[in-house]
Amino acid sequence: MEHQGVGIVGAGIVGCVAALALQARGFSVTLFELRQDPQLEPEMKNLRSINLSLSNRGIRAMDKVDPLLSQRILESSVPLVGRMIHDRTGTKCESQLYGLFGEHNNSIDRSVFNKLLIEETQHRGIKVLFNHRLIAVENKDVPKLSFDVLGEINDFEFDYIIGSDGAFSQFKYQVQKSMRMNTSQDYIDMQYMELYIPPGPQNSFLIDANHLHIWPRDNFMLIALPNSDGSFTSTFFSPWHVIEGIESPEAFGEFFETHFPDAVSLLGKEQLVKAYKEYPRGALIQTSAYPYHSPNKKALLIGDAAHAMVPFYGQGMNCGLEDITVLLELFDQYQDLAVSFEKYSEVRKDDLDTICKLAMDNYNEMASKVTQASFLWRKKIDYYLGKYANGRYFQWIPMYSMISFRDDISYSKAVDIRDTQDRFIRRLELGGALGVLGLALVKGYQAYTRFQRN
Amino acid sequence: MEHQGVGIVGAGIVGCVAALALQARGFSVTLFELRQDPQLEPEMKNLRSINLSLSNRGIRAMDKVDPLLSQRILESSVPLVGRMIHDRTGTKCESQLYGLFGEHNNSIDRSVFNKLLIEETQHRGIKVLFNHRLIAVENKDVPKLSFDVLGEINDFEFDYIIGSDGAFSQFKYQVQKSMRMNTSQDYIDMQYMELYIPPGPQNSFLIDANHLHIWPRDNFMLIALPNSDGSFTSTFFSPWHVIEGIESPEAFGEFFETHFPDAVSLLGKEQLVKAYKEYPRGALIQTSAYPYHSPNKKALLIGDAAHAMVPFYGQGMNCGLEDITVLLELFDQYQDLAVSFEKYSEVRKDDLDTICKLAMDNYNEMASKVTQASFLWRKKIDYYLGKYANGRYFQWIPMYSMISFRDDISYSKAVDIRDTQDRFIRRLELGGALGVLGLALVKGYQAYTRFQRN
Repeated sequence: MEHQGVGIVGAGIVGCVAALALQARGFSVTLFELRQDPQLEPEMKNLRSINLSLSNRGIRAMDKVDPLLSQRILESSVPLVGRMIHDRTGTKCESQLYGLFGEHNNSIDRSVFNKLLIEETQHRGIKVLFNHRLIAVENKDVPKLSFDVLGEINDFEFDYIIGSDGAFSQFKYQVQKSMRMNTSQDYIDMQYMELYIPPGPQNSFLIDANHLHIWPRDNFMLIALPNSDGSFTSTFFSPWHVIEGIESPEAFGEFFETHFPDAVSLLGKEQLVKAYKEYPRGALIQTSAYPYHSPNKKALLIGDAAHAMVPFYGQGMNCGLEDITVLLELFDQYQDLAVSFEKYSEVRKDDLDTICKLAMDNYNEMASKVTQASFLWRKKIDYYLGKYANGRYFQWIPMYSMISFRDDISYSKAVDIRDTQDRFIRRLELGGALGVLGLALVKGYQAYTRFQRN
Repeated sequence: MEHQGVGIVGAGIVGCVAALALQARGFSVTLFELRQDPQLEPEMKNLRSINLSLSNRGIRAMDKVDPLLSQRILESSVPLVGRMIHDRTGTKCESQLYGLFGEHNNSIDRSVFNKLLIEETQHRGIKVLFNHRLIAVENKDVPKLSFDVLGEINDFEFDYIIGSDGAFSQFKYQVQKSMRMNTSQDYIDMQYMELYIPPGPQNSFLIDANHLHIWPRDNFMLIALPNSDGSFTSTFFSPWHVIEGIESPEAFGEFFETHFPDAVSLLGKEQLVKAYKEYPRGALIQTSAYPYHSPNKKALLIGDAAHAMVPFYGQGMNCGLEDITVLLELFDQYQDLAVSFEKYSEVRKDDLDTICKLAMDNYNEMASKVTQASFLWRKKIDYYLGKYANGRYFQWIPMYSMISFRDDISYSKAVDIRDTQDRFIRRLELGGALGVLGLALVKGYQAYTRFQRN
């Protein structure tokens, strides 16, 4: 049998893993990338990328290609066992573990990750064509991709085409022209600015290496994720009016002194002055598209091209990689990529809608709830039930664990389970309240009868 | 003072009127159009355009340019005084008047309307550049539009730029790249196919000329709008599965025979065979965008580019023209187009969201409710209250009249008034029911006492 050809647009993390996965299933894959080969670029910090937190769902997708691949990637990452909450005084930190049994996320620099994957694709003989700017898609019987290659137009034909070219997907824009695709893009009223915490002496970590550090301040927050060289990538999130209300570099420094006193010594005052003047302020966007496949079953959207989400659940990339797991499982079942594309839209929608919503909701958790009594109380319940009610017939898995550490539980299933847990806890609390009330009544009655006896 | 330059992309109906209006306010306007000059085109039916119903809001916008202009346009139109409902047997018709005081809409062929407007713009010295395909917008201090003009790239600079290039606006796509614009596009599960009813002898109308004809069949419908030459433009609307479930041209003919028996003789069986095989099946889309202006206050979206709606309230074009009225009123107030652009987003959003929703809801009214007892009952109430409760202190204006004939009542205000009316009617009905109940009790008591006395 001749190998069927697949063209994948976008050689980011999701595009590379999709290429590896489909090649492993016998397809002849070509990968196109707008940017130049990162292996040719001088080492530099890409200030616009939020550091990535690789968790279970993402790892599973790479395992499906080759368990050695995920192992190699994880070697370049730093394990994250929990959140470290920095208080307002800058003197107290509190660790909140992610998992109950030592489960952890893995912090990794996006560009390091992407480079490793591009090397892997090339090493396995996949053609990766850089400097290819998609300008048109002709999605007929034989789909055609047209690229502007440094001023010259080159066309390529494939049996199937896949778009993994990110939130502002040109592939999506082109494909939707010839079909009925519902789309949306919504900007969140929030900016992000990336900052840098340098390593200490001998590449040591100046704050705990194995935590996602958070300075939650309700309306805005600062976070920091470790890199394997001892540095941290830090991100300041705030509504636009907050940063636009700060009118000078000095005021920006004072703002940090007031709200994140212990972070200022890590970031350095000079950086804050420079950041205010020069660092880009990124916008946060949520996008959706449906269906993900074209009516002729030749084209498919995956990753951010199909569902860009806000970064507050750390699931954007993991979910994009899980897209590939889902596609592969369908292919293994149907042995036909066209059928798999069609089924993919059907089975994947609920989970993608769910995680996009969870990501949005989680901003409140990170920026504010993590310090509230009710949140900490729920965390305690989750801890005891999760740790000890963990038998064969009854299992209690906290929401965060289901999303981040249990790829066998889909996003939408996780929400169903959480809702059931919530009802259970409300009953427990009601039972507890009634118990306390009953006890009070009994005690009151006893006191009353004692009083009467005297 | 030097004239400020405005570039308008899209010389459709809204684009032309915007050009005329801004020229009248002293701007130097250039109008760009993707298509070739329609004046050079041979006369031909554009099968993809739904015939237009021009009503009060649309006329008002042209009046603001020049009352003679609307007069000239109306001369090419046919007045529509109401809906003519065709029953299932093909033997009975019922007229439902639109207004209580002889108000009417005006049926006009889109291409005739557009040509008249293009002539008018050229006649008034506005540059109209055809065959200009927008390829890029650089929305800096001096906004730049780049066009592909028959293979050559031409750039133009303006003080302000306006996009009126329709539902699939290239202008919007370009401008949103450099700003935070929320957008959405939603396809409705419905297709439309345009058909043609030829004129009778001596350009006579074969069915009543002054009605919008409707064959409402709940799940699908046929409509017909008169043209001034005696013909009608007819449109068949149905969910996609209905037309895709019809498997041959013959079955399509039988479908029409069964559901629209009296229409078949008007359309001709041969046309139905041809239509099934060749006529395009259009998709219906609803789009939204927000804000409508760019942060530098140099660019604005109007008409379908900002808010494409489904055609079931006949307000798409009227609303697009009202966009211009609103913009002009803001300009007259602030004497500054930048400020007007910004205020426009603020004041126009509620009304645009409202009419898009009303248009969607009105499908049910046209396809199904017009034959229901509750709808006819409400129409009666509207008739009597509207006709006789029409004094200085108390006025009852039916919803349809507010939307179509009262440009002094904004779309969102109209919905508020309708909601108040609904509450009033529910109370009336409750009062009536209580009255009937009270009467029954009195009568029953009388009967009972009579019975006891005997």
